[in-house]
Amino acid sequence: MYRTHQNSDLTINHLDNHVILSGWVQKVRNKGFIIWVDLRDRYGITQLVFDEERTPKDVFDKANSLNREFVIKVEGKVIERESKNLQIPTGEIEVLVENFEILNESKLPPFTIETETDGGDELRMKYRYLDIRREPVKDKLIFRSQVSMAVRNYLSERNFVEVETPYLIKSTPEGARDFIVPSRMNKGQFYALPQSPQTFKQLLMVGGLERYFQIVKCFRDEDLRADRQPEFTQIDCEMSFVNLEDILQTFEGLTKHLIQTTHNIEIEDFPRMTFDDAMKTYGNDKPDIRFGMKFGELNDVAKHKNFKIFDEAELVVGIAIPGCASYSRKEIDKLINWVKRPQVGAKGMVYVKCNEDGSFKSSVDKFYTQEDLQSWAEKTGAKPGDLIAVLSGDTNSTRAQLSALRMEMAERLGLRKSNEFAPLWVVDFPLLEWDEDTQRYHAMHHPFTSPKAEDEALLETSPGEVRANAYDLVLNGNEIGGGSIRIHDKTMQSRMLELLGFSKEEAQNQFGFLMNAFEYGAPPHGGIAFGLDRLVAILGGQETIRDFIAFPKNNMGRDVMIDAPATLDEEQLKELSLKLDIEE
Amino acid sequence: MYRTHQNSDLTINHLDNHVILSGWVQKVRNKGFIIWVDLRDRYGITQLVFDEERTPKDVFDKANSLNREFVIKVEGKVIERESKNLQIPTGEIEVLVENFEILNESKLPPFTIETETDGGDELRMKYRYLDIRREPVKDKLIFRSQVSMAVRNYLSERNFVEVETPYLIKSTPEGARDFIVPSRMNKGQFYALPQSPQTFKQLLMVGGLERYFQIVKCFRDEDLRADRQPEFTQIDCEMSFVNLEDILQTFEGLTKHLIQTTHNIEIEDFPRMTFDDAMKTYGNDKPDIRFGMKFGELNDVAKHKNFKIFDEAELVVGIAIPGCASYSRKEIDKLINWVKRPQVGAKGMVYVKCNEDGSFKSSVDKFYTQEDLQSWAEKTGAKPGDLIAVLSGDTNSTRAQLSALRMEMAERLGLRKSNEFAPLWVVDFPLLEWDEDTQRYHAMHHPFTSPKAEDEALLETSPGEVRANAYDLVLNGNEIGGGSIRIHDKTMQSRMLELLGFSKEEAQNQFGFLMNAFEYGAPPHGGIAFGLDRLVAILGGQETIRDFIAFPKNNMGRDVMIDAPATLDEEQLKELSLKLDIEE
Repeated sequence: MYRTHQNSDLTINHLDNHVILSGWVQKVRNKGFIIWVDLRDRYGITQLVFDEERTPKDVFDKANSLNREFVIKVEGKVIERESKNLQIPTGEIEVLVENFEILNESKLPPFTIETETDGGDELRMKYRYLDIRREPVKDKLIFRSQVSMAVRNYLSERNFVEVETPYLIKSTPEGARDFIVPSRMNKGQFYALPQSPQTFKQLLMVGGLERYFQIVKCFRDEDLRADRQPEFTQIDCEMSFVNLEDILQTFEGLTKHLIQTTHNIEIEDFPRMTFDDAMKTYGNDKPDIRFGMKFGELNDVAKHKNFKIFDEAELVVGIAIPGCASYSRKEIDKLINWVKRPQVGAKGMVYVKCNEDGSFKSSVDKFYTQEDLQSWAEKTGAKPGDLIAVLSGDTNSTRAQLSALRMEMAERLGLRKSNEFAPLWVVDFPLLEWDEDTQRYHAMHHPFTSPKAEDEALLETSPGEVRANAYDLVLNGNEIGGGSIRIHDKTMQSRMLELLGFSKEEAQNQFGFLMNAFEYGAPPHGGIAFGLDRLVAILGGQETIRDFIAFPKNNMGRDVMIDAPATLDEEQLKELSLKLDIEE
Repeated sequence: MYRTHQNSDLTINHLDNHVILSGWVQKVRNKGFIIWVDLRDRYGITQLVFDEERTPKDVFDKANSLNREFVIKVEGKVIERESKNLQIPTGEIEVLVENFEILNESKLPPFTIETETDGGDELRMKYRYLDIRREPVKDKLIFRSQVSMAVRNYLSERNFVEVETPYLIKSTPEGARDFIVPSRMNKGQFYALPQSPQTFKQLLMVGGLERYFQIVKCFRDEDLRADRQPEFTQIDCEMSFVNLEDILQTFEGLTKHLIQTTHNIEIEDFPRMTFDDAMKTYGNDKPDIRFGMKFGELNDVAKHKNFKIFDEAELVVGIAIPGCASYSRKEIDKLINWVKRPQVGAKGMVYVKCNEDGSFKSSVDKFYTQEDLQSWAEKTGAKPGDLIAVLSGDTNSTRAQLSALRMEMAERLGLRKSNEFAPLWVVDFPLLEWDEDTQRYHAMHHPFTSPKAEDEALLETSPGEVRANAYDLVLNGNEIGGGSIRIHDKTMQSRMLELLGFSKEEAQNQFGFLMNAFEYGAPPHGGIAFGLDRLVAILGGQETIRDFIAFPKNNMGRDVMIDAPATLDEEQLKELSLKLDIEE
């Protein structure tokens, strides 16, 4: 037997008990005549004591060889500590060791296995199995498991069936790039790994399952941006005989349940905002509404005052940054440089200090009176003590730039509180977006999303104005889920693929099985997919997903621990009827 | 709103309620003046009635256009049926339709959507989305989902953490063939899809997680035998600080729980049998013990009686087939032909009829006395009325042949009852098996399995005799799970890989990260993996897994519904620095 108790179990109630414990040596304090060892397992830490007087001599001598991360099994008696540590559950006792066994030795680990570690990112990834021993990483993996179980229980109780859809499917050129898998038995042919189970879940609806979900890995061969992974996990859901309202209610319920379960916070009904309003008010279709700094559009009050930059701009728009009127010239210059960085891309920034005495001091006092600036303050909701930052230019870029500034300032001012949760539905997305490069429309969501019934006529005249039955669930400025009511009519689906520039043949080739399925009584249906990695990270109070993934890949898609991807035996490629085609 | 009730809900208690229902038209009976429609959804069936007198004329006329698998939404009033059907929950009522909407039409489906269908296998697979509408298939998918949830809840309640391990990993030549995935960002390099998360779960143990599980897809690029899939699902589990007994207890508990949950059957403690005994008694390491027909070895009593075939055989072994003494000469000849089929491979079969009067009639009466045959009956446990079938030859083949005959006869005699559950632990497997082709040892389980402590010395002298800390869980003649206590010591792991013929370099190259991990305090650990597809099929009372998989592939690894795998755009291959290498 390796243990009678876990290392979190023993308290003053166990005094004099004879116990067996196992775990890792977290720390050794050797005073020569007495040795204390912190013994760690997944559940906690128990202090062991070896003592020249009370411990058998051979046991005491062997204890001198113990070092960090050795794995041991000890037997001993629970005794009361002289100096108690009331921070941990076992802090009132220690175990006087009578005998112990070294189950495995350990080399000195490359970084310390403690909450605050000295290991850098690369080192931690290479020795991920040691990193996972650290409490913050281990706790995140356990937290993820708990969130997944909460999702599964919530949905199962509501008649959702978890169905495993296939991983070896067919490549579709639409959307992001697929990872492909050569088939040995079907020479010259390839499977693709799914970017999502989208078509399969729709087929399950055609199949009459009515309520489906799956927590499932998905794959995208994209050039990786920071905090993206080539494989990621979705909570994928679909329902039949529902309208948009049914879906929002169901998954709002799920999200409330998760916030309740993980943080014991009750959230009222989630606010809803149209895509247009989100763009106008926050310059962003996934606004963080934990804080204000709403956009104030200033065209009416800032144009035609001889300030050429604003006169020539399509949009002049500002935000009130709370409490920053006291910024020094140097601080403001730094902010201006920040918005001019290529990642943000503004050409410059106009500012107005709203002084405590009600007066204004701006970088454009030459053009604007105090009354003018007063109206800017009103439009942006600025109060005395705030700093108004104003950007201008074409509408889309200016909004994006001001949104970036808004987020940056919220971060700096500590307004993005990780224990506050502000969910938001964004609705009424455009169905299509025009792509200048290819000179054709792209589906903003995906080609299976239905247009709003009242906008269907516009499909013929101005497709760009058609709104979709699509919705995103935003939490703390991150899109955590998105979905739509699908097209369930074969004619409408063909029409849509035509609008997206698919020839009849391409459409049949790629989506034929779905369109054929639609000929046999497809029910009205819709669904949503949540990004589990991000959802768990945000519920865990963080924005980076990496530590919530057991074995993440780096920005080159490499697993540095196992050193994958790797070259193959030539034999393996030959069996697949492939050869490398690399220019030297 | 699409529904106020599901189609299983309405009973005599809802009389006169105004209801809305949605679903598929299962059946139409049109008498001219009255039309009955069975409306089906996932949950059940409700009878609708349209009636010349009571239904508005336009609604009645439209009802004439209804056909099988149309999707409709109806509004109407619950009324009492004249002729009740007490077989279904809604059989006492029908809904008098006041108004309805055709949500989608349907072409006539290629096979009938009923419990007994006229669709052949290929057709059902091609239109799998229609097949899933059939109750037996739909119920199997729901059953699978319930079993998965039961597994997750059972393990989560016992502190197991579900951790998602990566799908894009590294190819290892050991074992079955990997599916590979070219990396675009790392030219000339490849990921592999996991055959199991074996090394990752061991790394999680090194990482101190102590109790891990995952329900996870695994991949094997094998030439497919019947009822094998290139992608399949495992319940993968691992524990630290446990011995073999702890693991058997834990997963015996899980299996009992599943049988209890799905069939309300309590099973006593599972019997255990050594590999050697299983081979000796049943000729098989996964014996079906729902019925007897244990092997009786006859060397002692059948040799040295001048019957040359037996005299030259390494093994003479028989079984008593209950109640088959009455077989005619023709029936026996058919049985002999059956064992001589190439799939079984016996050269012939000796038989003894145990007559009701206590006498014996055999095909070898020339060589054996009644007393001889009496001793055969004793060894095989034959009773009057039984037929003893005896095979002979080299030990391994003869056992395999007799095992095949035993299973076949049990099947024919209806002894393999699908609602009976007979689990069995098979233990003490050999660690290694000698491979004549490559003239080296292979790991019987896998290279991470530990030898029994008491057999370690044999590693040097007779490796083939070393027993492993390995176990299989057998249910009704199918291996549903298998696992082992792992090696956690780096030196032992190197020793094992050496025995398996890995050079130091190959070992480092393929398993380096695991062996490195073992240098940093690996705990004692072990685990098990269940094949979920088969487990669910057996719990569902069947032996073929295909219907328990939503979208299975055929024996060529093809998904005939989506027509995958398929050829790729040349562009896609080029991006991956690959070209086809097919000889014309």
